[in-house]
Amino acid sequence: MGDQLNQALNYASENREKILDELIEFVQIPSISTDPEAVQEIQQAAGWVANQLKSLGMDNVQVIPTDRHPVVFGESLRAGKDKPTALIYGHYDVQPADPIELWESPPFEATQRGENLYGRGASDMKGQVVISLKAVEALVNCGELPINVKFIIEGEEEIGSPNLSDFIANHKDLLACDFAINPDTGIIAPDIPTITYGLRGLAYFEIRLYGPDHDLHSGIYGGVVHNPAQVLCELIAGMHDREGRVTLPGYYDSVRSLSEDERAELARLPMDEEFYLKQTGVPELYGEAGYSPVERTGVRPTLEVNGLLSGFTGEGSKTVIPAYAMAKISMRLVPDQDPKQVHDQLEHYLDTNVPDTVKWELIDHAGASASLTDRNLPEVLALSEAMEDTWGIRPVYKREGGTVPVVAQFRDILGIDTVSTGFGLPDDNLHAPNEKIHLPTFYNGLETFIRYLYILGNS
Amino acid sequence: MGDQLNQALNYASENREKILDELIEFVQIPSISTDPEAVQEIQQAAGWVANQLKSLGMDNVQVIPTDRHPVVFGESLRAGKDKPTALIYGHYDVQPADPIELWESPPFEATQRGENLYGRGASDMKGQVVISLKAVEALVNCGELPINVKFIIEGEEEIGSPNLSDFIANHKDLLACDFAINPDTGIIAPDIPTITYGLRGLAYFEIRLYGPDHDLHSGIYGGVVHNPAQVLCELIAGMHDREGRVTLPGYYDSVRSLSEDERAELARLPMDEEFYLKQTGVPELYGEAGYSPVERTGVRPTLEVNGLLSGFTGEGSKTVIPAYAMAKISMRLVPDQDPKQVHDQLEHYLDTNVPDTVKWELIDHAGASASLTDRNLPEVLALSEAMEDTWGIRPVYKREGGTVPVVAQFRDILGIDTVSTGFGLPDDNLHAPNEKIHLPTFYNGLETFIRYLYILGNS
Repeated sequence: MGDQLNQALNYASENREKILDELIEFVQIPSISTDPEAVQEIQQAAGWVANQLKSLGMDNVQVIPTDRHPVVFGESLRAGKDKPTALIYGHYDVQPADPIELWESPPFEATQRGENLYGRGASDMKGQVVISLKAVEALVNCGELPINVKFIIEGEEEIGSPNLSDFIANHKDLLACDFAINPDTGIIAPDIPTITYGLRGLAYFEIRLYGPDHDLHSGIYGGVVHNPAQVLCELIAGMHDREGRVTLPGYYDSVRSLSEDERAELARLPMDEEFYLKQTGVPELYGEAGYSPVERTGVRPTLEVNGLLSGFTGEGSKTVIPAYAMAKISMRLVPDQDPKQVHDQLEHYLDTNVPDTVKWELIDHAGASASLTDRNLPEVLALSEAMEDTWGIRPVYKREGGTVPVVAQFRDILGIDTVSTGFGLPDDNLHAPNEKIHLPTFYNGLETFIRYLYILGNS
Repeated sequence: MGDQLNQALNYASENREKILDELIEFVQIPSISTDPEAVQEIQQAAGWVANQLKSLGMDNVQVIPTDRHPVVFGESLRAGKDKPTALIYGHYDVQPADPIELWESPPFEATQRGENLYGRGASDMKGQVVISLKAVEALVNCGELPINVKFIIEGEEEIGSPNLSDFIANHKDLLACDFAINPDTGIIAPDIPTITYGLRGLAYFEIRLYGPDHDLHSGIYGGVVHNPAQVLCELIAGMHDREGRVTLPGYYDSVRSLSEDERAELARLPMDEEFYLKQTGVPELYGEAGYSPVERTGVRPTLEVNGLLSGFTGEGSKTVIPAYAMAKISMRLVPDQDPKQVHDQLEHYLDTNVPDTVKWELIDHAGASASLTDRNLPEVLALSEAMEDTWGIRPVYKREGGTVPVVAQFRDILGIDTVSTGFGLPDDNLHAPNEKIHLPTFYNGLETFIRYLYILGNS
């Protein structure tokens, strides 16, 4: 069976040009899920994926409608009941390309410059979807697929997957599997294979404060009303203490503590203060006392102000006491925090601290639990082996600060773990102009994915 | 000479229809000073005033250009050197009419409904200008004007009078006088004649905070950077203590203390907590401990947040750590605070309190000193007498919370006191849709103004 692996790796190596052409073809479809005009492009991208699945000999290939954009499904169960079944997740939709004028080449042309291919979705995540498809293609071309696979490729990830949770719940049998693979994360540098074993959750709120019933003249009324913009600032200022800790009552009660073992593993990551200073451009870092930057972004929960709006914000001056002030506030959550509990904590904080001089409203925008995959799970160890075989070094382990709700949905609805992988790089300009994928890393990713499926089917 | 007064009052009474028609004509000119397209309308309004002055027999009538909108001047010095000379200030420009859809009748049609005339500028301040013109007309029609008057009617008040200070400085001889009358304030109710003897000053700033060099993904970077929106809130929260006092270092050092006598006079004003609750619609008042609402809006300085802007402020959610946060902050000043000192106090506060995790910038937008006119000045006593003769009750004395920079400019450049008067009402919707003037109060104002000029010339 080692023959199949070698042949598959050879196939991938010999067909680089064909594979790149197919990636370019896929990137050239402007499947922007937020754009209500892009109905045809969305259908085109879903059809492209379905055709790929058919050409790999997948069975039961379907483009399944949802309330908005369809999910593409296909499966191969020919490895038999003794072999595991992996559910491979992906999305064919992309972010908008705005601001277009900042792109050095058109976002939907897919232009190669040096070692990179530039185009919207090249890294997030059409390139990753192509890696998973072409890994299966390489193995199928050199024998029977060594494990069972099911593909679920959705079209709404960039708009928050509004229909995915229902879709999973309504297709439990179709999606039945042993574990999932989500190649929507990345590695931290071209020469550092990385396994993301944790993702933070998210709770996103809007706080609205209402003061006077209309904007007031600050000369006539300055001195008798509590300015809602001032109250908002006072409330937000009270949400952190001097140690950078979040002060919401009970906020840390359900946070799992960090083991010495995990702390040592995370310390291997080459992401020190200098790294974060360079990435962010801030004059000095900030954060919860007692934790390293990697721990603060991956293992510890945070609270962020995402937006503020009140009163006059144009040029020059207008002497107004605003009637209204608004803040967008979100928390990145870690196991075992619960978005609903966090809602209650914030509500309790407001209940206790909003003065009687204003009225308030709390609006929920999004909630997703954190997820954490056991680093000693066989499926994680197999990925580690595949990476080490490809790069020649042991991967580093990382807990990602961002949120991938599908991981929690697979866990909660299907009862399965997800192995996160993916071969994007930190400078791939996701969601920004000049998104690109680094082609040598793309090919390493393809090699890793082939090895990974092979190891999963032969251990 | 009592005959002249009676005849003049009769003239005003018999010509109410003609006077109202002229007010309507004036209001119908859309002389919006912010509107770069309204050049012709501005000229038309200036010309209307100049023609009025000529028709009153004023000498030396001129429409004097400035860098933007002209100043209209006219004078009558025929009362002779033994009589005082009053400089009557006014402005012929108006605020924009936006939002137009909220007007019940077109803003530049001047529509009478019940006891009110609706139209942009009806109260602020074309109605007041007409009162001053028609008071002179009534007296001139019944004999020689008993005092010397000079009119200065500008066209840039609603854009902050950018050229007025230079104009005054360059026309000191033309404007030479004993005192000024500014009818740009109001009375607190139709049945309560009011004298405004103090105005607060203003210092207006913009604080800009710069954190990361671009908006960051709050998942990836939440935990390592100090969110500039959070820092801004922390800074603003620190600007007031629990007693509602401003914490800027030295802020109250030069504030004149309130005498028992003045406190008693101000306590006569029927503006209690209920009044302010009703005017503002807030659930509960707020302000500096130890002072009444009238004192807090007139005699004590304040600090207000006029605007806040940072990050994502659209609908829904975007998980961004903003690169930038901005606040508009202004202070209403009282004697003897100095806008320049207040700038230094704010700068010192920021210098001390902005953490090293962000960069900051402080921008000056406007500065004007407060003003205070002695209540026992003969010109103020004369106005009190004129009001008492018209309404039958002694006027109340008020310190206005707003700022009228021209009062400080007259004091600083010409060395004269200004008597503030005017007959607008709190519900006249200044700067808002459905601006109106209350016609019975308008006619009382005209009667008062006739009496006032007569008393000034005969005491």
